[in-house]
Amino acid sequence: MEFNIENIMNKINNPKPDTWSQILKRPTKTIDDIEVTVKEIFKEVQKKGDEAVAKYTSVFDGIALDNYEVTPAEIQEAITLVSTELKEAIQLAKNNIYKFHYAQKAERISIETIEGVNCWQEKRPIQKIGLYIPGGTAPLFSTVLMLAVPAEIAGAKEVVLCSPPDKTGKINPAILYAANLCGVTKILKVGGIQAIAGMTFGTKSIPKVYKIFGPGNQFVTVAKQLATQFGVAIDMPAGPSELLVVADDTAVPAFVASDLLSQAEHGADSQVILVSTSKKLIAAVEKEIEIQLEELPRKEIAKKAIANSKLIFVENDKIALELINEYGPEHFIICSEYDDFYCNGVVNAGSVFIGNYTPESAGDYASGTNHTLPTNGYAKNYSGVNLDSFMKSMTFQKISEKGIRNIGPAIERMAEAEGLQAHKNAVTLRLKNLE
Amino acid sequence: MEFNIENIMNKINNPKPDTWSQILKRPTKTIDDIEVTVKEIFKEVQKKGDEAVAKYTSVFDGIALDNYEVTPAEIQEAITLVSTELKEAIQLAKNNIYKFHYAQKAERISIETIEGVNCWQEKRPIQKIGLYIPGGTAPLFSTVLMLAVPAEIAGAKEVVLCSPPDKTGKINPAILYAANLCGVTKILKVGGIQAIAGMTFGTKSIPKVYKIFGPGNQFVTVAKQLATQFGVAIDMPAGPSELLVVADDTAVPAFVASDLLSQAEHGADSQVILVSTSKKLIAAVEKEIEIQLEELPRKEIAKKAIANSKLIFVENDKIALELINEYGPEHFIICSEYDDFYCNGVVNAGSVFIGNYTPESAGDYASGTNHTLPTNGYAKNYSGVNLDSFMKSMTFQKISEKGIRNIGPAIERMAEAEGLQAHKNAVTLRLKNLE
Repeated sequence: MEFNIENIMNKINNPKPDTWSQILKRPTKTIDDIEVTVKEIFKEVQKKGDEAVAKYTSVFDGIALDNYEVTPAEIQEAITLVSTELKEAIQLAKNNIYKFHYAQKAERISIETIEGVNCWQEKRPIQKIGLYIPGGTAPLFSTVLMLAVPAEIAGAKEVVLCSPPDKTGKINPAILYAANLCGVTKILKVGGIQAIAGMTFGTKSIPKVYKIFGPGNQFVTVAKQLATQFGVAIDMPAGPSELLVVADDTAVPAFVASDLLSQAEHGADSQVILVSTSKKLIAAVEKEIEIQLEELPRKEIAKKAIANSKLIFVENDKIALELINEYGPEHFIICSEYDDFYCNGVVNAGSVFIGNYTPESAGDYASGTNHTLPTNGYAKNYSGVNLDSFMKSMTFQKISEKGIRNIGPAIERMAEAEGLQAHKNAVTLRLKNLE
Repeated sequence: MEFNIENIMNKINNPKPDTWSQILKRPTKTIDDIEVTVKEIFKEVQKKGDEAVAKYTSVFDGIALDNYEVTPAEIQEAITLVSTELKEAIQLAKNNIYKFHYAQKAERISIETIEGVNCWQEKRPIQKIGLYIPGGTAPLFSTVLMLAVPAEIAGAKEVVLCSPPDKTGKINPAILYAANLCGVTKILKVGGIQAIAGMTFGTKSIPKVYKIFGPGNQFVTVAKQLATQFGVAIDMPAGPSELLVVADDTAVPAFVASDLLSQAEHGADSQVILVSTSKKLIAAVEKEIEIQLEELPRKEIAKKAIANSKLIFVENDKIALELINEYGPEHFIICSEYDDFYCNGVVNAGSVFIGNYTPESAGDYASGTNHTLPTNGYAKNYSGVNLDSFMKSMTFQKISEKGIRNIGPAIERMAEAEGLQAHKNAVTLRLKNLE
């Protein structure tokens, strides 16, 4: 049977708002059965350390290793294996990511809230950072840049990177090259649940960290969630990648199609949505998808994702914006005459791409923005990874004698009304001392 | 038997670093049995909505309510019930909290990372905020200020506050007064697990929110954790409150004792630690604790917490700082000749109080800093609540024809090396179009 794009794409005409949540529903997965496995491995790593890590590396990665840490010799080898062209590309991307994240450095915010009461906020680095980089066919060295560059700018003392070894006990050279370039302090050949458990509890080989970043399969996702129950923070909850494009007749259909497909190739569960006020544009994009799809090496994956995709016609831009904010896309491309309207009005999105020459892949690799972004509607309540993700806000206050005279009586009254006499006392004693 | 402070306080002399983690250990609690109850109530609220909320309000709060929403008449009544003195105190505290959090407003950060590639970061408010305020004997209206003020500055569209009704179906007037003063959009008489479940799923009476803030007992804590599995964000993981004071002979022993006690009165599981390079100061503080403790209405609670407290002598300030950073205190008071050394060197702390006239209760109520802070060592990886807690960072990029020519080839190479052909295509198509 010939592949017919008309039959697989979901075109939706002017949907009523009360149907939006159904139309925009993401595929959900149950994780209950995975949880049991993850908890078991966590317990074993907590108890037995490296012994358990060795066991599961053998089980899941099919290799026995004596030493998990990547040696300087292995890094040197990796450097020679990466082509000059790719090195230059990585360097250009790194420069842009560095510039954008460095610009996010915040000065101390200091204010005298009332005479004699000085308060300030400072950001200090999280001292120990863990990065997880998946293995497999697609070596995500770009994610190494996205995480290690801001970690270094923030000033983390330790940046540990875990990535699973292949069957020969190696990590892809581009990953090692990027990690070395960006100041990662320790690289470990450990993957999956055992890597997350190792960074959570610490083992002889794997340092305990305070916050874990990075993508992964369902096992890694559940393991990161579990890590939070043991005092470790994580970047954000994960879900399949997604893209929403809003486009009108000012958009180039071939470009829009290429963006939708670049999202679709990520995985069969990727989400791809086009919202438009132009039926003509929708038809043209559909046609372009059919043409471009046939050329893709990963077309089988992309076809499955395209089958879940939605092409939604709406009557005007106001409705489009409402729908987009209800969805809260991870990636949001705007190719519209009214791009300012969308830029100003969007409140729920991870990263926004404006205009015909701003493909999503620019943000994935080299524009400078971060590609670790909230999926699954989390753009409603989570930030994408940024410099602050690697820091903590701390507050300071210094109160003078004049200051405590100014706010002391208010504190005494409030503490008393809350029934906290010792809180009141701490002020009363000081005020008496000043009499 | 007479109460003898000497017998109950733990004095530790010059502990070796390898014993620190044992000495500084916080009391841990198992939550497995609570989890079952919480999950059950979540399921029921998800399925039955208000019906389940009514059932558990009746079970836990001992009252049947027809209407959960606080009416304008009830708010008017609350306003008349709060004394003018307390109103003035609340207003002063609100002004300071407002000033400090307003100062945290961030401008858009914009940068041209390479010619033609413009990237910027903007913060936008989380649209729907939920606040939880516990009931009971101590009405935490101060927490209303700490959460509702920054929510309003951030620009949240909806701020819902849930607090359990008392046996007569009312919420403490000071809580209602503060909520009304700070722009809370809806106040609901719902408490405990059913409140958190209601804000997670939404019911007819309780709006669904995107992020939940606020303290609570163990049930509320576990419920907030569970909420994160249903797409809702929370302020931070919770634990018992704690204070660490570093003091030398420049400190006033009576003041230090009053601060330790004001922490101790929070609960029997509160953590209170004094670190000092002066044995003389430790002895003097101990004596003062004994004197002041006897005067406290909550002395039974405070005594229990004091029994868990530690008075630690260390040989010098460098060791003290290391120990403090290993502990990562929620509240950190510095009364030392070398306060700059500690201010600059502390990397793990929630809020820092400097000098003899800066009691912890100043930050709890009225200096302007936030009192919702990371406990349990979470100061190592979490910020205290601040303006950003109510916002999300979003990134934007706009690339010109010149810009895509500058970064396009690098993207093509990187996408190819990661095996993502469609990502490459999205750029190739555009570059070709420009030839």
